[in-house]
Amino acid sequence: MPNISTKGKMMPASPIRKLVPYAEAAKKRGIRVYHLNIGQPDIKTPEIALEAIRNFDGSLVEYSHSAGNASYREKLADYYKKHNIHITAEEIIVGAGASEALLFTMQSIMDPGDEIIIPEPFYANYNGFATNAGINVVPINSSIESGFALPPIEEFEKSITGKTKAILVCNPNNPTGYLYSREELEVLKNLALKYDLFLIADEVYREFCYDGKKHYSVMNLEGLEQHVVLIDSVSKRYSMCGVRIGVMISKNKELMDTAMKFAQARLSPPSFGQIAAEAAINTPDSYFDEVLDEYLKRRDTVVEAINRMEGAFCPNPSGAFYVVAKLPIDDSDKFCQWLLEDFNYNNETVMLAPATGFYSTKGRGMDEVRISYVLNVDDLKHAMKALEEALKVYPGRKG
Amino acid sequence: MPNISTKGKMMPASPIRKLVPYAEAAKKRGIRVYHLNIGQPDIKTPEIALEAIRNFDGSLVEYSHSAGNASYREKLADYYKKHNIHITAEEIIVGAGASEALLFTMQSIMDPGDEIIIPEPFYANYNGFATNAGINVVPINSSIESGFALPPIEEFEKSITGKTKAILVCNPNNPTGYLYSREELEVLKNLALKYDLFLIADEVYREFCYDGKKHYSVMNLEGLEQHVVLIDSVSKRYSMCGVRIGVMISKNKELMDTAMKFAQARLSPPSFGQIAAEAAINTPDSYFDEVLDEYLKRRDTVVEAINRMEGAFCPNPSGAFYVVAKLPIDDSDKFCQWLLEDFNYNNETVMLAPATGFYSTKGRGMDEVRISYVLNVDDLKHAMKALEEALKVYPGRKG
Repeated sequence: MPNISTKGKMMPASPIRKLVPYAEAAKKRGIRVYHLNIGQPDIKTPEIALEAIRNFDGSLVEYSHSAGNASYREKLADYYKKHNIHITAEEIIVGAGASEALLFTMQSIMDPGDEIIIPEPFYANYNGFATNAGINVVPINSSIESGFALPPIEEFEKSITGKTKAILVCNPNNPTGYLYSREELEVLKNLALKYDLFLIADEVYREFCYDGKKHYSVMNLEGLEQHVVLIDSVSKRYSMCGVRIGVMISKNKELMDTAMKFAQARLSPPSFGQIAAEAAINTPDSYFDEVLDEYLKRRDTVVEAINRMEGAFCPNPSGAFYVVAKLPIDDSDKFCQWLLEDFNYNNETVMLAPATGFYSTKGRGMDEVRISYVLNVDDLKHAMKALEEALKVYPGRKG
Repeated sequence: MPNISTKGKMMPASPIRKLVPYAEAAKKRGIRVYHLNIGQPDIKTPEIALEAIRNFDGSLVEYSHSAGNASYREKLADYYKKHNIHITAEEIIVGAGASEALLFTMQSIMDPGDEIIIPEPFYANYNGFATNAGINVVPINSSIESGFALPPIEEFEKSITGKTKAILVCNPNNPTGYLYSREELEVLKNLALKYDLFLIADEVYREFCYDGKKHYSVMNLEGLEQHVVLIDSVSKRYSMCGVRIGVMISKNKELMDTAMKFAQARLSPPSFGQIAAEAAINTPDSYFDEVLDEYLKRRDTVVEAINRMEGAFCPNPSGAFYVVAKLPIDDSDKFCQWLLEDFNYNNETVMLAPATGFYSTKGRGMDEVRISYVLNVDDLKHAMKALEEALKVYPGRKG
């Protein structure tokens, strides 16, 4: 039997999916499982996007332009203008989700053996894309005590080597919900200029900012235009993760010309997804007002509940729809499995993501979990109650 | 300004797209350009697939399973059964087109520096995927004189090294239209077993076989189950290239488990595309009868026309919707550009793909072009007339 690749062996398995069989078994035992483990919102997709799909009147579903339909990219440029981000249609490449857009970016910038610095905890799939591209992730620790703020610049400088090619931040952050300030991004700008590094920002949660705080995009860092790559997606913004439409945006023409070669090799991004995404640009503001209102209530429900639990702690982040909570537990992987396998409270339990999957430093995140507040407030209350009761009886409880 | 990657610099630019600006300029001069350069059919998408899209009644477009919707994979297994290919839903991973499916396969099997043997001429994007994965394509020459039949087994054996991990064939072939016989595939089977290599077959043109010939799938090579990977796509079968739905299929569980890690990293394939593709499985046989009838007429139109042109030659292939023709020209890149830039016959000209882009051996394909017969017979006659007249006056004519 022929061998599979070393790269394939090294590819990380999804830290969340390994729990799926336990969740399914729990359901078979009649237990209601509240899914707070994934970033699949329950919010409805804007009607205007679904209507565009239902009204499709073509007779032939053709390849689109490899960079995405020109009409879509032009409307996107208008959309960004409203958000004070000034780019042209030529500075956009549409990918099959932010996943593909980020992979194009990594491959265009880095060769196998090169290094990318990412504050941890970070979105677990960054590891997958990096392994895929053969590049090494160099994590910089951000701590729950500081609410996961940007680590001091010295930490970054200590990690920079001749192999370092880029810094990647997710803003607002998955998994922490942390919203980077303009000042923090200016620090990264100075670093990128000093060491001639790309600054990649995954801003797919841009619309999800709370407490009156405003998102500041890396695209507005003056003088950094040739170094900045913006990664974006319609998955969360319009609650349509399945359309698989994301973008990479940069004013660096050499980078975009290079990324286009990767884009051309795979022909084109999904046509129907682009139709939905183009129509979604006209989603009324009221949609976002309602959605933000709803998420804010959810965040408050979760954060308050956790901070009431003995020995537990959770910062109150201003973005996205995640929190990372510190729990009085020995091992978050064991705990999350135990919740599904051995625990229920009134026939209910909760599925969480062990934070270990969001750290690339071994041993970190052992007493942390990520909670996605993607269910309604009533469900969240039940889920938090189950978690509270679970912590009281968990055999691996600490402190 | 930070550097882009060496890999990015090495990524091949699309051999066809470099002609696009010349085609656009010709159109601006009022010249009608017949596009025989790409594999975008003009055939209508089955109504049943478009209806499924128009009838989408969900309110939320969620991620699908990373391997694709279970309902789709189950129906696909039934579809293959009808084609005498016996697989289960678990042996299928749905990708964003055959492009992604092939990339998953290559990455799961091969590490940077490994080698894959491909008979040339071959589909140009194989070069892009190989460069992307850091692997080296080792071409084996198949000649137009033999109609692009499988090269002798000795040629393969001469090329096998300790780095060789796989053989890739496209059957029916793009760009040659050649349909490999069962006997030829048995030769490859013996080779794969002898040297413990994967045999990857891109069978996206399976339905397009003519002259009463039947397609034989690598999935039916007995005793090779652990070595075979089937790549397939709905793009050509149902004329819906834009849905971006393809598959990789294998009975090798270790390979599929590995490929799943790449699939999970990018979350899921396009949801709307899967809806269209699942519905398309019920396309009535009459659709294919009509389509095949139409393509057969087109093939005959092109092949007869070319073989009537002085100094030109074209085999009469039994599959796909391409032919590679040998023309009395000095340089196919120059000739194809000249057709768009400096030539017209009654204000008409033709856009062809220089065959050089389908060879990885430098210097090959200089007097060959690929012709996609994706236009109706009347248009094809006009296009062939323009080509005939062009060859009479082309300054770089040879012989």
